[in-house]
Amino acid sequence: MRTLEETIGSIPPPDAAAAREAQARLDAKTKPPGSLGRLEELACALAAIRGTAELELPRKALVVMAGDHGVAEEGVSAFPQEVTGQMVLNFVSGGAAVNVLGRQAGAEIVVVDMGVRSPLPPDPRVRSVRIGPGTRNLARGPAMTRAEAVRALEAGIDVAHQLADDGVTLVGIGEMGIANTTPASALVAAYLGLPPEEVTGRGTGIDDEGRQRKIAAICRGLLLARPDSADPLGTLAALGGFELAGLAGVAIGCAARRIPVLMDGFISTASALAAARIAPRCAYALLASHASVEPGHRAALAALDRRPLLDLGLRLGEGTGAALAMHLVEAAVRIIREMATFASAGVSGAA
Amino acid sequence: MRTLEETIGSIPPPDAAAAREAQARLDAKTKPPGSLGRLEELACALAAIRGTAELELPRKALVVMAGDHGVAEEGVSAFPQEVTGQMVLNFVSGGAAVNVLGRQAGAEIVVVDMGVRSPLPPDPRVRSVRIGPGTRNLARGPAMTRAEAVRALEAGIDVAHQLADDGVTLVGIGEMGIANTTPASALVAAYLGLPPEEVTGRGTGIDDEGRQRKIAAICRGLLLARPDSADPLGTLAALGGFELAGLAGVAIGCAARRIPVLMDGFISTASALAAARIAPRCAYALLASHASVEPGHRAALAALDRRPLLDLGLRLGEGTGAALAMHLVEAAVRIIREMATFASAGVSGAA
Repeated sequence: MRTLEETIGSIPPPDAAAAREAQARLDAKTKPPGSLGRLEELACALAAIRGTAELELPRKALVVMAGDHGVAEEGVSAFPQEVTGQMVLNFVSGGAAVNVLGRQAGAEIVVVDMGVRSPLPPDPRVRSVRIGPGTRNLARGPAMTRAEAVRALEAGIDVAHQLADDGVTLVGIGEMGIANTTPASALVAAYLGLPPEEVTGRGTGIDDEGRQRKIAAICRGLLLARPDSADPLGTLAALGGFELAGLAGVAIGCAARRIPVLMDGFISTASALAAARIAPRCAYALLASHASVEPGHRAALAALDRRPLLDLGLRLGEGTGAALAMHLVEAAVRIIREMATFASAGVSGAA
Repeated sequence: MRTLEETIGSIPPPDAAAAREAQARLDAKTKPPGSLGRLEELACALAAIRGTAELELPRKALVVMAGDHGVAEEGVSAFPQEVTGQMVLNFVSGGAAVNVLGRQAGAEIVVVDMGVRSPLPPDPRVRSVRIGPGTRNLARGPAMTRAEAVRALEAGIDVAHQLADDGVTLVGIGEMGIANTTPASALVAAYLGLPPEEVTGRGTGIDDEGRQRKIAAICRGLLLARPDSADPLGTLAALGGFELAGLAGVAIGCAARRIPVLMDGFISTASALAAARIAPRCAYALLASHASVEPGHRAALAALDRRPLLDLGLRLGEGTGAALAMHLVEAAVRIIREMATFASAGVSGAA
């Protein structure tokens, strides 16, 4: 187990020379300069993250972390809390949306129980971390202790190192946790200093009254937590969740190993925002896969200075948007690897 | 060879019952209703086009048609005209962007010479239609005769029928033709009654002066053609190109065979717009893959009432955006085929 502090210290800077070399290679390909738009930007970003313009076809993994949330008792979700554990079983039997899209992407799916309420039957296909049987209710006190948040972060760092050791070169982060748009909204409000109503949406589909309960719970949580911008880890502990802290750890660990991290929707982006507040140098490795319907998502992406690759009206989470965007990451790599140059194809350049 | 008239007469209506059945199946899957956004819309649209909610994994083809344009002599392109033929050779040797993205998508690429200026060496990998050695200059008179336009349309219809007979169930349409944003802009201006400067961009990257020459050429062409909304075929003949008319034929032929057609960028969308004016019932089969940088593209898509799936700043053509969007079409099919239901996975529904 590598510590949080040691991992943060080992994050390398982006490789600007590799990005320039990637652009030079793209400019020699048989196409008008810049005409592949964001695929070209993506290829250069990948070169900066990987530290080389010799990009290999990505070996892909989706890390899907699950956890329960004490704040569910405030009536903030349309679904009952047992769905979290039920969906973990759905992930291992391959029937969830992220399984379908992960198979299509050719991505390994790593399912991690960060702390669902009722213990699941032991299953070698679920990595069991279980910081606790769900967090405490953030509207009544800190969701996690500081020590729990560090344990969750370090568990995520560990997953990242293991994937890196296995040769994985592209990681998507996804989650499952009934009520977890509530801690995500609370974290985004706290880190960005935004009023809760601006960053709170309907999650899986609650009504107006439910959304008002959600906003009220977040307001109480923020009043209790008194977020201090000098202590982003304390904010994560007070308002976050086990799976959110775990994914923040995955992002930090991947950045330390030069592995690009595809954020999924609102919750995984809130996790990445926490990671970037705790370890600012990890942000270079973050890529935005899609724009969620959740109102807080755009604010979180803007704070991370990232534009999403897809905008498909998704609001499912699990890593589904990250799985879809892996195709575009692979396309960017294939373009730089496989396209002919004007010279090799005997094609005349612009006049 | 089936005639244009007979093919238009055989276009079926969309199957609304199949689309409703697709939505009902999606609503039973383990996800909040509607949470897969545009993937769900896409699955329903595919069901309406295919005439069944029992969607099969698509067998994919990209039809890339090439042609030259007399209007190139007006100095409207940044690239010399011989690039059209050179790129056809690049397509057959597999080095162009559409080859790379087509391979990634698992799509067969059908390369058609609709009339490049200098005849290419015979090659079994190029389907030779060659209506002529490039069109005439649309700024000086009709680009094609009416008979040439019909021959090009029927050649496209033939390609569509052959693909359908081979079991293809998803077709992307792309093109190559130096100067062909000029006829595309002229057609969009004519069909939509828009001023040429609103729908004319920089193509492969001409400067301001070149763009002014392009606008002037289109204005002269429109004054000569005097487009009549009662004669969309006459407009296509006067202002279009061999590859544009050919792709319009592919769209009409695919619609007759219930095959969804992924439009690519500006030029293929202008072709599809011509198809929809000549054969309005074909429009049900059109899907928009991406939003091009070309200013006329959004106008053409709006006229067809289609929202693009991707917005990646592409402006290359060839079918590259259609190739990328095939992944999303396949994702929509996989979701409806492979996801577990609440009942099958033992997951509780919303409260």
